[in-house]
Amino acid sequence: MDYQSYFANQRDEHLKELQEWLSIPSISALSAHKEDVNRAAQWAADTLTRAGLEHVEVHPTAGHPIVYADHLHAPGKPTILIYGHYDVQPVDPLNLWETPPFEPSIRDGKLYARGATDDKGQIFLHIKAVEAILKQEGELPVNVKFCIEGEEEVSSPNLPLFLNDNQEKLAADAVLISDTALLEKGKPAISTGLRGLCSLEVSINTANTDLHSGSFGGGVPNALHALVELLATLHDKQGRVSVDGFYEGVPVLSQDMRDEFAKQNFNEDKLRQDLGLDELFGEEGFTFVERTGARPTLELNGVYGGFQGEGTKTVIPKEAHAKITCRLVGDQDPEYILDRIEAHLIANNPIGAKLTIVKGEKAFAFNTDHSHPMLQKAADAFEKVYGTRALFTKDGGSIPIVATLSHVLNAPAVMMGFGLPDENLHAPNEHFNLENFDKGLLTIVEYLKLV
Amino acid sequence: MDYQSYFANQRDEHLKELQEWLSIPSISALSAHKEDVNRAAQWAADTLTRAGLEHVEVHPTAGHPIVYADHLHAPGKPTILIYGHYDVQPVDPLNLWETPPFEPSIRDGKLYARGATDDKGQIFLHIKAVEAILKQEGELPVNVKFCIEGEEEVSSPNLPLFLNDNQEKLAADAVLISDTALLEKGKPAISTGLRGLCSLEVSINTANTDLHSGSFGGGVPNALHALVELLATLHDKQGRVSVDGFYEGVPVLSQDMRDEFAKQNFNEDKLRQDLGLDELFGEEGFTFVERTGARPTLELNGVYGGFQGEGTKTVIPKEAHAKITCRLVGDQDPEYILDRIEAHLIANNPIGAKLTIVKGEKAFAFNTDHSHPMLQKAADAFEKVYGTRALFTKDGGSIPIVATLSHVLNAPAVMMGFGLPDENLHAPNEHFNLENFDKGLLTIVEYLKLV
Repeated sequence: MDYQSYFANQRDEHLKELQEWLSIPSISALSAHKEDVNRAAQWAADTLTRAGLEHVEVHPTAGHPIVYADHLHAPGKPTILIYGHYDVQPVDPLNLWETPPFEPSIRDGKLYARGATDDKGQIFLHIKAVEAILKQEGELPVNVKFCIEGEEEVSSPNLPLFLNDNQEKLAADAVLISDTALLEKGKPAISTGLRGLCSLEVSINTANTDLHSGSFGGGVPNALHALVELLATLHDKQGRVSVDGFYEGVPVLSQDMRDEFAKQNFNEDKLRQDLGLDELFGEEGFTFVERTGARPTLELNGVYGGFQGEGTKTVIPKEAHAKITCRLVGDQDPEYILDRIEAHLIANNPIGAKLTIVKGEKAFAFNTDHSHPMLQKAADAFEKVYGTRALFTKDGGSIPIVATLSHVLNAPAVMMGFGLPDENLHAPNEHFNLENFDKGLLTIVEYLKLV
Repeated sequence: MDYQSYFANQRDEHLKELQEWLSIPSISALSAHKEDVNRAAQWAADTLTRAGLEHVEVHPTAGHPIVYADHLHAPGKPTILIYGHYDVQPVDPLNLWETPPFEPSIRDGKLYARGATDDKGQIFLHIKAVEAILKQEGELPVNVKFCIEGEEEVSSPNLPLFLNDNQEKLAADAVLISDTALLEKGKPAISTGLRGLCSLEVSINTANTDLHSGSFGGGVPNALHALVELLATLHDKQGRVSVDGFYEGVPVLSQDMRDEFAKQNFNEDKLRQDLGLDELFGEEGFTFVERTGARPTLELNGVYGGFQGEGTKTVIPKEAHAKITCRLVGDQDPEYILDRIEAHLIANNPIGAKLTIVKGEKAFAFNTDHSHPMLQKAADAFEKVYGTRALFTKDGGSIPIVATLSHVLNAPAVMMGFGLPDENLHAPNEHFNLENFDKGLLTIVEYLKLV
């Protein structure tokens, strides 16, 4: 049976299985979900076993477990390490989901659930592609290893140690990753760059108690005033980050790179309209694709303090908080960036405000050479299934572990994304377009046969 | 029996009654508490009836009811209208209360509960003082009217109409109000000024959905960036409000007024230490007492947007919100001030941000002449009970209805406060020092006999 017919026959069963996995709320950031994360890991291990993989193990770590499996019966052929993650982002604001995030639902050819596209849906394709080849042909054309972690959404704190301790076991000729997106429907892309990441939390404390704004207003520091004043110093009015040293290590955008970005023919006006924005906004002199693909950013992800209820409360709040993440490019050092931001905040700290900074995640940006045969063959595989050659792009997101994987294993990272840019990953109503579910299975089979 | 002995005998019963009232969560700002507010009004009416007052009524309004009662059997003697309120502020953050806000508890000679000092505890003193005179002497030395409302904490939207419709019924020679504080333990004060108030809510909307900071960061507006940038324009670094026109109508502080403020011998260093602050903060060139008594202020009471949970969420939030109140002095017009703030926000609105402004409460500041006999006699009454003459002060808080009461009834407002400045009104662990509960009862009896 050809693979298209095989996958068509299996489609209902495959979707049923994936929905089972998606209904496990494996939110790695929230400790209350620790057991759910464990269940999602075990589900992956069981599914790999049923697919015919060997040496399946759920490897405990200091955090969430790593699922490993392999099938190594193609001597003389390349070894492909398939990486993915079974953990997901938090789901709030819950009220904005049209259907509950952990009750998967198919509407209009799209599968809605937290994790549908990021990344359970995409790594599931690899398990089922390998299973298909084994069932159809009894053997694989290459050696395959799976490494599926449960901490990608919290910057993979425990995977580097696992990689270092198991370099031989994980050794591969390429690391294959599906955790990115097509450029748009029908336009496949292979990401040759990912932005780095660093995070911090900032708190301002003033008085030891909330105060009445009548009795004290105008005479004491207000934690919210101090925080907004401080946060407002982080950008200039054109959206450029004002932190001294922030742009150190950011490569100058060459005309070649600009030409490569321009090939995407990205429709900024359509994006603006889709997002309901009056205008896009970012550093002057760069296109949207350049801003997100080749420029760093510092984003406020959350700010809160004082009264949030209905009506008015005349309070001077004693504390206020902000959550910040940066996306980094080129050689920007996340540790150095966090130090520079800390220095900036201390230098600009308003009168009477006690400042606390907690530094969090740190990951370098990643870039790879698109001329490597393992990447060119990925473009060939896309072309066979999608009828059009994949573009090599730079992705604005971060998969903090990719640089480490590629470096420790000394193998190129091949990022074949099957998501779409509007699939609401990290937001309410995350979904996965099933057209790419179907084509993704075929593309992975093609790739494993080509390399 | 002298009044001291009478009140000593009744003390346990009085405290039991007050605690019953305090356990009704009559939060006027929250619609879920509408029935509680009604219960608190009925409780006041029943207590006034039992005290011997006449014509007791719970007067319905478009919002929460007004409780009226009188005792008019002293022909030729002055008529005193006693004003107070039975509604209370919201209670969050609930986790900071040592005992639940609506389970009154006496510790260390202090009665802890929401409303203990603001204002149930203070208006309760008046009911019990009038009851005491009636029980001891069978008649009152003056005519007395009570007007106890349930919307003071939301700026008394419905009392003005009631006042206008009932000018004759409410006519009085003085309006007596206990909703302020002593300067400190043993140092009574009569407030001859209150700050005005206006409020607004500001919202910023950007995209029509929360966005992933990897795929979009640096290329789209972030609602939180826009909000903190906008809010930071409201003050300069010295804490002065930067809104054009904000200081119109603010009187120049005369040397006489500065001398009057200086008489308070206010200990700024002790306040700073009590609040755990490194330094006090406010407009340059003014003392704390001047800043809160004679200068206006614009305070952020709440700011929120994006992720507030545990850990990191790499989201670009689509909306962000702020709650703002101003305290006004002199002739500042709350409506004009709100218009000026609106104009400022529109003029400074960052690129790509959709701004929504909802204007709320509006109240002028109030000032009265301390040489009026009705105020001088209040100082006499304090002197008899506390052994020291009350200072005439300017209060930083707002009782929005005082200006209206005094104006519509053409009578001076006599503000005899029995609270203390550190009793956490509008904050967790609100309480009422029982020393002033005891002395307050005696002071009110003295005052009613003196006028």
